[in-house]
Amino acid sequence: MTIPAPPTGVVPPVCTPLTPDREVDVPSLRRLVDHLTAGGVHGLFVLGSTSEAAYLTDRQRRLVVETVAGHVAGRLPVLAGAIDMTTPRVLDHVRAVTEAGADAVVVAAPFYTRTHPAEIARHYRLVAAAASVPVIAYDIPSAVHTKLPAGLVLELGADGVLAGLKDSSGDLAGFREVVTGARAHPGITAFSALTGSELVVDSALALGADGAVPGLANVDPHGYVRLHRLCRDGEWQRARAEQERLCALFRMTEVGDPARMGGSSAALGAFKAALYLRGVIDCPATAEPQVPLSPEEVERVGKHLAAAGLL
Amino acid sequence: MTIPAPPTGVVPPVCTPLTPDREVDVPSLRRLVDHLTAGGVHGLFVLGSTSEAAYLTDRQRRLVVETVAGHVAGRLPVLAGAIDMTTPRVLDHVRAVTEAGADAVVVAAPFYTRTHPAEIARHYRLVAAAASVPVIAYDIPSAVHTKLPAGLVLELGADGVLAGLKDSSGDLAGFREVVTGARAHPGITAFSALTGSELVVDSALALGADGAVPGLANVDPHGYVRLHRLCRDGEWQRARAEQERLCALFRMTEVGDPARMGGSSAALGAFKAALYLRGVIDCPATAEPQVPLSPEEVERVGKHLAAAGLL
Amino acid sequence: MTIPAPPTGVVPPVCTPLTPDREVDVPSLRRLVDHLTAGGVHGLFVLGSTSEAAYLTDRQRRLVVETVAGHVAGRLPVLAGAIDMTTPRVLDHVRAVTEAGADAVVVAAPFYTRTHPAEIARHYRLVAAAASVPVIAYDIPSAVHTKLPAGLVLELGADGVLAGLKDSSGDLAGFREVVTGARAHPGITAFSALTGSELVVDSALALGADGAVPGLANVDPHGYVRLHRLCRDGEWQRARAEQERLCALFRMTEVGDPARMGGSSAALGAFKAALYLRGVIDCPATAEPQVPLSPEEVERVGKHLAAAGLL
Amino acid sequence: MTIPAPPTGVVPPVCTPLTPDREVDVPSLRRLVDHLTAGGVHGLFVLGSTSEAAYLTDRQRRLVVETVAGHVAGRLPVLAGAIDMTTPRVLDHVRAVTEAGADAVVVAAPFYTRTHPAEIARHYRLVAAAASVPVIAYDIPSAVHTKLPAGLVLELGADGVLAGLKDSSGDLAGFREVVTGARAHPGITAFSALTGSELVVDSALALGADGAVPGLANVDPHGYVRLHRLCRDGEWQRARAEQERLCALFRMTEVGDPARMGGSSAALGAFKAALYLRGVIDCPATAEPQVPLSPEEVERVGKHLAAAGLL
Repeated sequence: MTIPAPPTGVVPPVCTPLTPDREVDVPSLRRLVDHLTAGGVHGLFVLGSTSEAAYLTDRQRRLVVETVAGHVAGRLPVLAGAIDMTTPRVLDHVRAVTEAGADAVVVAAPFYTRTHPAEIARHYRLVAAAASVPVIAYDIPSAVHTKLPAGLVLELGADGVLAGLKDSSGDLAGFREVVTGARAHPGITAFSALTGSELVVDSALALGADGAVPGLANVDPHGYVRLHRLCRDGEWQRARAEQERLCALFRMTEVGDPARMGGSSAALGAFKAALYLRGVIDCPATAEPQVPLSPEEVERVGKHLAAAGLL
Repeated sequence: MTIPAPPTGVVPPVCTPLTPDREVDVPSLRRLVDHLTAGGVHGLFVLGSTSEAAYLTDRQRRLVVETVAGHVAGRLPVLAGAIDMTTPRVLDHVRAVTEAGADAVVVAAPFYTRTHPAEIARHYRLVAAAASVPVIAYDIPSAVHTKLPAGLVLELGADGVLAGLKDSSGDLAGFREVVTGARAHPGITAFSALTGSELVVDSALALGADGAVPGLANVDPHGYVRLHRLCRDGEWQRARAEQERLCALFRMTEVGDPARMGGSSAALGAFKAALYLRGVIDCPATAEPQVPLSPEEVERVGKHLAAAGLL
Repeated sequence: MTIPAPPTGVVPPVCTPLTPDREVDVPSLRRLVDHLTAGGVHGLFVLGSTSEAAYLTDRQRRLVVETVAGHVAGRLPVLAGAIDMTTPRVLDHVRAVTEAGADAVVVAAPFYTRTHPAEIARHYRLVAAAASVPVIAYDIPSAVHTKLPAGLVLELGADGVLAGLKDSSGDLAGFREVVTGARAHPGITAFSALTGSELVVDSALALGADGAVPGLANVDPHGYVRLHRLCRDGEWQRARAEQERLCALFRMTEVGDPARMGGSSAALGAFKAALYLRGVIDCPATAEPQVPLSPEEVERVGKHLAAAGLL
Repeated sequence: MTIPAPPTGVVPPVCTPLTPDREVDVPSLRRLVDHLTAGGVHGLFVLGSTSEAAYLTDRQRRLVVETVAGHVAGRLPVLAGAIDMTTPRVLDHVRAVTEAGADAVVVAAPFYTRTHPAEIARHYRLVAAAASVPVIAYDIPSAVHTKLPAGLVLELGADGVLAGLKDSSGDLAGFREVVTGARAHPGITAFSALTGSELVVDSALALGADGAVPGLANVDPHGYVRLHRLCRDGEWQRARAEQERLCALFRMTEVGDPARMGGSSAALGAFKAALYLRGVIDCPATAEPQVPLSPEEVERVGKHLAAAGLL
């Protein structure tokens, strides 16, 4: 079969299940892929922030892509993050994930270094020139501490450098500028604008987004697929109700005590606890040095699931 | 011979010379090491920010450590950065640089992810438990976007987790808290507090720092060694004059046009242009996606060198 | 007539026309109020950021409120900003604008000082206890450098401290938490959630916002009133088209050269140039130390107006 | 007598004692001035951050300046902050404090608005043109969220706009650039570079600063005067010991629980508690909405005083 490129619809950023000693739990990862596929999702995104890409070694990253790409076997497009600090290091990851079976790569702006828009543009041009698959920009200012300017994204889209944008900036107005700009631009024929939000997917689809990459879709893929269908069908009132249900469920990410742990520990810990409680994965462990949820906090995740009818 | 551990004195963060096609230029790197050694420096720090560690592939990083450790052959201690996002990835680098000959590793707080002081502490404890060489904390908020709290550094020092601190925070008052705290702490017997500043090395040494890691020492190692000796001898007026001379020389990092390039391109481009003009390295190229200095900007670097009597 | 409190619908933040020597231009201000009223707006917000409140002296602030409140004479509710650093200074402004005729006050979190959520809560409780009119929280992190937590806003709403929220944070997901939280909260009977965005008003209204406070409504009040009516009637496709037209018009705020001026100069300069070109105000001057648009930049504002059929 | 302008030496930012109902406590303020004068300080700075200027109403601000200027009666120079968001509002304060007796004004960059270096320059030029006393720039990025570039400060110094700099940025390297730049600049004949640090006063004086404005000098003026004299006399070892003693004393600002209050509450609460415990002021209250120290926290302030021999 032919894979739609660039991807549209619900494309969950796939969690990376780990064993108690922090190795990739391959059987659990396959079950998670089955769970998402059964939920009706339209694609899979591995090695993003929700996948704990920042915590996985190169060996683990490769194993994740091979496992997922091998397991879906072409039934769904598999996007893979190539997350590293600068162009030369990103190019190594692009090669690795492509060899491992990724259909597209998702690439952030340079980080750790002090960068500049001209250097960000150069970065994407070099990556796209070397990649054998489409390149999607990953706008994630909370991680890289720069915001991709909408004008730059559109320029790179028109030049064939970027095939899409995964927007995790939280700035819906800036995202809209890309969405409407890509549609209006004579030089852009195919560009996939995906929101990374869990909480305003209905808003993003209403203003023209091509799809969503919500971390919470690991826990409730059916919900996001339903939301996407309602939006596509113009059923905005029902879409809003479904989105509000998912917003309530998302509050599971607040059970982790902020005095004891950071935001990644709390959010990824909650998603994995939920997948564990739902029987999808064997162990809720997150990678080091993240702080695990306490038993009481896991219990509160369970209450969120129960309230949503997911347990 | 026995290497002092932890290191003291002038420990330049060694630039990584590149060929025009951005491979590590091994002969130039050896010449640079000879240039620094001839300048009288007390140690070498490879794979830090000034070394463009963020831009080097794993293969290139390993080659840098092997080249430098092999070339100094125990005459000087070699510290190596193990720069990556989180504990599991840092541990891979710690293993690699230790096998390649590093005498100590320099490790930053987690970045890219949303972290927390408790997770930073856990990170350093896990790294130190796995490392076979001393671990020095790298406080570099401009890169990792968190500041290492002085209290945490001291706690980890007292617990034998950290053997020192390389402070590139620009916050001299916070650095002083570590310096005086380490001296006063009954549980800390050996701790090396190194400033990463080029511009207030005299101030840092005056308040008790053990040494300095100034990027500009690539260009003028004799100057920083002289400055260090003057401070050690309590010749504060002459030290201040030497420091002011080096501050003037440092303005070479301002020749790069900020409308055209970021701060790393400008600073590293200037250091490498200076080393090229002084005949130490064969090519002033910086790694991608950094923007090169223009010929006019390189000429202005040359004027700074000439004014300092270095050309 | 009875004024709806808290306000809903389109509530423009009214520009403050100035004379060439930077005094409040009272006749122009009255004409601007007439222009907005003729456009069908549902309320007026004076002394916000778009009103250059940060640039007006206390005397000028009072004159603005007296002029606007006197001119609308109860036909529309008049909200007034009480913008200052901390509680005691804000209380002085609350008294002044209330005496001058404001129907409600809009109050930001403390700024300039290093603050804390507990102090922000205390601030609002003290202001509300002293105010004789409803208090609306102004969430504007770009100015005050803290974000109002949704939970705090809801807590203060339930306690009768806050009558509403003007959200200029750009964080639509956080705004949604307030909107749905206020609706669901048994203790909150009347709470007005207003978006400060120009660019995602349709999204905000679709998820339940009570109204909008768009600076661009100074220039095109009819457009925003039309947009609001389309949203209220569930005409989402037509609303989106109207919103996209207004987004294109908003690009007038980008004509000011960022190498020469800050964001306030560019945005407020464009709004005032547009009002001047449309014949509503006599002089496009902005307050000191803002940098004026060049004649060429004003000409480009005119082209945006012409493209929108507003000239 | 003639007042040295611009000022040098130890110039404490004078706390503003308040009564239990948060009015300016004039008798306590006079006693505090006597306490500082007896300590041998060289000038007084009122209405800075340590004075809680951000929390005082215009009426209270005027009363503070009148009280202090009246009480010192020309024996010492009195600098006054003119802290507000933009030029027109700052000009009102400049007039008020000058009429009330200030010998110089201290002015920050614009804040709350989105500003630009060109606008900051314009701001200072307009303020200086209107002021009848010397203008000193207040570099306080933690409050105004922009850093004054050293080059801009020197340019304004050479043009006679600025008579000095009060540097509360914590960036000693940037401060050094101003200090050495002002000395070297042919167009600058008198320029007073003052550090706002409590913790690296010895370092700042060693590199050429003209004086210091340490908040902790409210508590221990004798200590800072001694430190200044030792530095002036080149007694660097003894200066360092005195500075380290004051650093230890400064840790009183850490007794306030950061889970319960912000940094201003903790630091100003500690200074005022210390002045109260030392019998200088009648009431340790800080202005609203700051959170007061608990009795246990006040007790810990007392222990810091006792350890320093100040109780």
